[in-house]
Amino acid sequence: MDKNKILDSNKKYLQTHTETFDFLSNQLCSQGRDVTNILKKLSQFQVAIPSWALGAGGTRFGRFGFQGEPSNLEEKIDDVGILHSLTQTAGAISLHIPWDVPTDYDTVKERAKSQNIVFDAVNSNTFQDQKTAKESYKYGSLGNMTKAVREQAIQHNKEVIDIGNKLGSKSLTVWLADGASFPGQSNFQTVLQHTETSLKSIYEHLPQDWKMFIEYKPYEPNFYSTVIQDWGTSFMLANACGEKAYTLVDLGHHLPNTNIEQIVSTLMMKGKLGGFHFNDSKYGDDDLTVGSIKPYTLFLIFNALVYGMENNPQNPYPAWMIDASHNIKDPLEDLMQSLEAIQEAYAKALLVDQKGLLKAQQENDVVRCQEMLQNAYRTDVRPLLRQARLNSGGAIQPIATYRSLKIRKELIKKRGANSVASGL
Amino acid sequence: MDKNKILDSNKKYLQTHTETFDFLSNQLCSQGRDVTNILKKLSQFQVAIPSWALGAGGTRFGRFGFQGEPSNLEEKIDDVGILHSLTQTAGAISLHIPWDVPTDYDTVKERAKSQNIVFDAVNSNTFQDQKTAKESYKYGSLGNMTKAVREQAIQHNKEVIDIGNKLGSKSLTVWLADGASFPGQSNFQTVLQHTETSLKSIYEHLPQDWKMFIEYKPYEPNFYSTVIQDWGTSFMLANACGEKAYTLVDLGHHLPNTNIEQIVSTLMMKGKLGGFHFNDSKYGDDDLTVGSIKPYTLFLIFNALVYGMENNPQNPYPAWMIDASHNIKDPLEDLMQSLEAIQEAYAKALLVDQKGLLKAQQENDVVRCQEMLQNAYRTDVRPLLRQARLNSGGAIQPIATYRSLKIRKELIKKRGANSVASGL
Amino acid sequence: MDKNKILDSNKKYLQTHTETFDFLSNQLCSQGRDVTNILKKLSQFQVAIPSWALGAGGTRFGRFGFQGEPSNLEEKIDDVGILHSLTQTAGAISLHIPWDVPTDYDTVKERAKSQNIVFDAVNSNTFQDQKTAKESYKYGSLGNMTKAVREQAIQHNKEVIDIGNKLGSKSLTVWLADGASFPGQSNFQTVLQHTETSLKSIYEHLPQDWKMFIEYKPYEPNFYSTVIQDWGTSFMLANACGEKAYTLVDLGHHLPNTNIEQIVSTLMMKGKLGGFHFNDSKYGDDDLTVGSIKPYTLFLIFNALVYGMENNPQNPYPAWMIDASHNIKDPLEDLMQSLEAIQEAYAKALLVDQKGLLKAQQENDVVRCQEMLQNAYRTDVRPLLRQARLNSGGAIQPIATYRSLKIRKELIKKRGANSVASGL
Amino acid sequence: MDKNKILDSNKKYLQTHTETFDFLSNQLCSQGRDVTNILKKLSQFQVAIPSWALGAGGTRFGRFGFQGEPSNLEEKIDDVGILHSLTQTAGAISLHIPWDVPTDYDTVKERAKSQNIVFDAVNSNTFQDQKTAKESYKYGSLGNMTKAVREQAIQHNKEVIDIGNKLGSKSLTVWLADGASFPGQSNFQTVLQHTETSLKSIYEHLPQDWKMFIEYKPYEPNFYSTVIQDWGTSFMLANACGEKAYTLVDLGHHLPNTNIEQIVSTLMMKGKLGGFHFNDSKYGDDDLTVGSIKPYTLFLIFNALVYGMENNPQNPYPAWMIDASHNIKDPLEDLMQSLEAIQEAYAKALLVDQKGLLKAQQENDVVRCQEMLQNAYRTDVRPLLRQARLNSGGAIQPIATYRSLKIRKELIKKRGANSVASGL
Repeated sequence: MDKNKILDSNKKYLQTHTETFDFLSNQLCSQGRDVTNILKKLSQFQVAIPSWALGAGGTRFGRFGFQGEPSNLEEKIDDVGILHSLTQTAGAISLHIPWDVPTDYDTVKERAKSQNIVFDAVNSNTFQDQKTAKESYKYGSLGNMTKAVREQAIQHNKEVIDIGNKLGSKSLTVWLADGASFPGQSNFQTVLQHTETSLKSIYEHLPQDWKMFIEYKPYEPNFYSTVIQDWGTSFMLANACGEKAYTLVDLGHHLPNTNIEQIVSTLMMKGKLGGFHFNDSKYGDDDLTVGSIKPYTLFLIFNALVYGMENNPQNPYPAWMIDASHNIKDPLEDLMQSLEAIQEAYAKALLVDQKGLLKAQQENDVVRCQEMLQNAYRTDVRPLLRQARLNSGGAIQPIATYRSLKIRKELIKKRGANSVASGL
Repeated sequence: MDKNKILDSNKKYLQTHTETFDFLSNQLCSQGRDVTNILKKLSQFQVAIPSWALGAGGTRFGRFGFQGEPSNLEEKIDDVGILHSLTQTAGAISLHIPWDVPTDYDTVKERAKSQNIVFDAVNSNTFQDQKTAKESYKYGSLGNMTKAVREQAIQHNKEVIDIGNKLGSKSLTVWLADGASFPGQSNFQTVLQHTETSLKSIYEHLPQDWKMFIEYKPYEPNFYSTVIQDWGTSFMLANACGEKAYTLVDLGHHLPNTNIEQIVSTLMMKGKLGGFHFNDSKYGDDDLTVGSIKPYTLFLIFNALVYGMENNPQNPYPAWMIDASHNIKDPLEDLMQSLEAIQEAYAKALLVDQKGLLKAQQENDVVRCQEMLQNAYRTDVRPLLRQARLNSGGAIQPIATYRSLKIRKELIKKRGANSVASGL
Repeated sequence: MDKNKILDSNKKYLQTHTETFDFLSNQLCSQGRDVTNILKKLSQFQVAIPSWALGAGGTRFGRFGFQGEPSNLEEKIDDVGILHSLTQTAGAISLHIPWDVPTDYDTVKERAKSQNIVFDAVNSNTFQDQKTAKESYKYGSLGNMTKAVREQAIQHNKEVIDIGNKLGSKSLTVWLADGASFPGQSNFQTVLQHTETSLKSIYEHLPQDWKMFIEYKPYEPNFYSTVIQDWGTSFMLANACGEKAYTLVDLGHHLPNTNIEQIVSTLMMKGKLGGFHFNDSKYGDDDLTVGSIKPYTLFLIFNALVYGMENNPQNPYPAWMIDASHNIKDPLEDLMQSLEAIQEAYAKALLVDQKGLLKAQQENDVVRCQEMLQNAYRTDVRPLLRQARLNSGGAIQPIATYRSLKIRKELIKKRGANSVASGL
Repeated sequence: MDKNKILDSNKKYLQTHTETFDFLSNQLCSQGRDVTNILKKLSQFQVAIPSWALGAGGTRFGRFGFQGEPSNLEEKIDDVGILHSLTQTAGAISLHIPWDVPTDYDTVKERAKSQNIVFDAVNSNTFQDQKTAKESYKYGSLGNMTKAVREQAIQHNKEVIDIGNKLGSKSLTVWLADGASFPGQSNFQTVLQHTETSLKSIYEHLPQDWKMFIEYKPYEPNFYSTVIQDWGTSFMLANACGEKAYTLVDLGHHLPNTNIEQIVSTLMMKGKLGGFHFNDSKYGDDDLTVGSIKPYTLFLIFNALVYGMENNPQNPYPAWMIDASHNIKDPLEDLMQSLEAIQEAYAKALLVDQKGLLKAQQENDVVRCQEMLQNAYRTDVRPLLRQARLNSGGAIQPIATYRSLKIRKELIKKRGANSVASGL
């Protein structure tokens, strides 16, 4: 991405933007909000892009490909580079092993560095069988009844740590599909104990400055039970492993109607929220574009996150990642929509008058509590997002710029129409 | 309500309002939106207040009262009058019989008229036993296995029509609790046939210019089955009754994750959406303040409603009503929050560039489709709502005005602290 | 399958079976049940096996293969032949086009006939793109905004009818994935109208003695909306097409907590229940083995089906099919478990004292109603199922027999370990 | 209850019962099951009846009374006495304070003792305001923002312990309605901290040999958030309080599709399952008769409970209670249906061949695992239940006996038709 092209593209939006930004800025200042500080926080907020989100995802009913997909790790990094140039919010990539094992570490690191991309959490895969694998994960991995399978899964996770370590990653995300599709298929207590033992073994392999994130999910791909089915189980396992182990919350991994913001609050109070995966959904783990279905819930979650970041020093700064798929959109445009929705929710949460809210809560003035949240939410914060991007050299209008620069066309020219991204 | 007090109160908000309205108005005009027309539509949009929403509702675990509740029909009308004076959007009341049978029709009509309140749909009650009733609805009403019970329920509905007719209402809303709490308790086909026959009998009693609205609900107060469990059943019954019979959609009466906007679209296409009840919910029929949980869904529904009102001449103008309860808020403040949320969603839906959206749909440009909806939704439309109220003589800031005028205090002084509203 | 092997295998179970059957039979006779008639009905009840259920299914996260899968249509028919020999309940196969297009119709028909297998409903596929296809179904098929796509999808369905007709099928099942994954992506009314028009065009192509089944599903693979989202929409479309068009109910295609037996009752009363797909699920359309999660619900549905078959002459005899997948079980064993669960639920429903139940319902004796259903459900009907199979020459213990005859081993020897079934 | 009347009533059922019991007994013995031991366990299994379940419950839409309800504590004990005489499984009562405060402890204890009834867990009530209360629980109790309210709620719980102690209870159940109905209404972390502190204060008041049970529930009566929303939160609080604090699982207190048996297993492994409340539901916390909706789920839960009772010495023997309501059934008949369903599920779980199941699990033979569970579940165990009752002097057919003895009629004669039970 040529920076000048972005600057060029910004020209036509600049005047309108400046007017709306100035107007909003004045409005917010008169309400006592610190716009400069908000802009600074927005600029600092960086979300990792998972390598598998750069190709078209699919469902069990099939997959509709997209042209110009990145077919190797280098091209995936380039895609994130494009996103980051335009949005200035996607300064990290999260690799999935074995889909993204580097062949030449120096080249890969250089490629990332030159585009201001760092390597975020690395992800292991014990839910699929690799062709060269000796043991099968058909009946589980870290919690499998057979020791040899557990050993293979532990070993794989250790290798993932090693790979990540060479790239500068500082954390491992463990998502397990382990569970059962039929009642009676497995013994809940035994598989949970195996899982704990296996996790502890992986934990021992963590470098000093690393963290381990334990993801939970109620169902899919197993449809009766999942070993780590909820935050309570993940939290229990993280406590059993040690202080470098944390729970990871994925927005789509909850039963219908779960109050996710409350879970976030509890985990941060306990110092155990390690990572957060963004997406949106209406029915299950739909992995839709962030903010496309329930933007107010996203805001409420950010309200809890902002509160925790301000008030819970016991909790580390969480690792942020988008975990969405899309078989009917250009993946890069889709990710820009996700990034915009994330920043929007964050900005609105930053607008909440926390002191005023606390006072209203203490007075049990429920109407005022609601008014205060809705006042922040109803504010059109897009000028703040644009200004934050502008300050960092990004595009005022990322998607419009991406389209006017015909970037996808360029990618197709370079990579071919039928390239297929590795991964889901 | 003294109009001058509202005007007085507006003074302190006027300058800020004018600035933000002018700025937004210019912005929207430059995007091709017709602000004058939008304001006109907002002013015309009137939502009925149900008489039972003016007292504190409760749950099966108990009820926490609120002071100064209206204890008779006249006081309920006065409460709606207050709401309407402030918001200029609540120009109708919806009565529930037998809770609100007028003793003197002329007085009641005069009281309403003087406050610019009309009588919207009347609601029958066959889910509770009245002390004087001969038959019990314990095992159903219009679908009861016993003819005498069905007859009593039919007769009651006819009387409700007669009462409504004397007041100037033009529609009857029938909500049935009929169903079963245990498998085997009732024969699905028999009770459905009885229900259809009973509805037809009530339909025959409708005055020429009346409509009958048939509500549906999947569960509660019956917890295994409900006779009219979904829109499909209601639609089938409405078709069986005739052209004056319509389906009524209540936002809270759906199974988890139902796509309600699609139901609205289908019904309007078929000319059968008669009424709409607003509320919000996270878990079931929670009857929370409109827009307090899923404001984006409300916007999507309004997008479908606006589309239907523009493109479906076969569908009558729907009857709008708030159907929420609240045992922890001042009912009047709660209703003002609901009215604000409804108007906000309506205003945003009016901002959608329908032509542009259609073009993007035809081109399968999913990203642009989403951008167009979100562009409308992300706009802060509060200045439009304030201007619409101002144009009609209402309050720029209804809740703040209500508080500064100490209206609740006045009501308590007049009605006493322990007055209890009839109804749920 | 050599019949004698089954007879041989039966010998060791015969005495125990006879004792339990005789005991149960006496017990039921003393309660006034007609055991002979029940056995006859069980023998007549035949469920179609879909061709795609004979290989291991998977999820979007991957697929774990099973050895000895049938790799062509002939082998699929043989698999159904094995099932039918053992269970005497699987005397039909349901083909999916284009996965199962016969190359030689005579051979295929002969192969089926020799194993007493008939060809049930044929299924079209407009949710995946075939390599040779000109148009893509990425954005819909029968409801696509583009006419050329709709035409291709219509033409495909007509060809499926023609193929089915040559094989002796008498019905077409249309399942559409059409819908949207994002709000705004499509216009609900337009796509519904297109869908109706397309279905009518296919309907015109139906031979005189054919039926068309219209399936519905709330979500997946689209995650915001589905064009035919519920029975109400399907029913409306079936009515629009004509008397040969019917609704098809798939157990897994409902929102959480839907009362499916009530839908079945309503459709049968209206003479519009054309087909029924069996499976089970805990979370969504999990496609688990029938009866593995909610056997009581299955019984309640069968209770509604039995009632309808006895009392609704306006409804045709429904087409039954299993629609489950399984990536962790031997598909043939899994299907035998499904068949057993279906027959069990049917047998229990046949035990319900319908006259006694009606009387209890009329007396509003809810406790007795429940007792009557539970009395039938709690009866251990396995001896009836075994006797019905025995009467037809099947196996007393199908799975045990399948295992003792080492049938899977034989199939692997014949087909190889790595054969892969076409289809999902 | 005159014992002789029950014995008389048994006569007409005895022969049939003996035949079916003998037949089943032989069958089970030949499968290696220890029938004598199973009968012993069934006899020992006693379930507490909550005092509030003896009157007709209702919904927020109203309540339909039942004749002859017990109007004071003594009569409630008598009702449990009737249940226990007939079923021999209801040897305990669970009191709710302040609804059931004894006026004369000795009389009450004597009344219970004479009917073989013990006093199980006592329940506090901080979700309703009592007329004499100084502070209101409208905005919470143990987690209230105001110290005086928290103090009142703590004090109340201590008094409940004292009352229970005088009666011989050994445990306190704390169910909190605390939560919020609107986003922003409360600060998740603050109210959780307050709740923990309050619970610890109550815990300090527990006598040496007492336990405290902490109940959880996702929603209702609050509809946005609940302080103790899930087992994870309850477990965390129980750990914070100490070794006498446990989690209590109520079947109806879960989000849709939750795998409850897995929660039970985890808690027992951790030694923290203190109590269990039985009921059934299709939609939410419907509080229907146990086993009336999902009997297979109940069996799976009992399978987990039986496993835990055999293998988890670290977990105390749980306190069992029915927590259902019913406004359309005679409460006593309803409770007998619940008791039967509980014993049925327990008996079936006792039939599971645990060693065989473990072996099948170790071999990943999913089909066999399912067969083993279903073999136990499909067995008609009613003869075992009858024999267990017979052994203890109860009725072979409790409901039929209750009806033939016209017990309700007697109660109405004694108490009047319009007596109203205190409580929900």
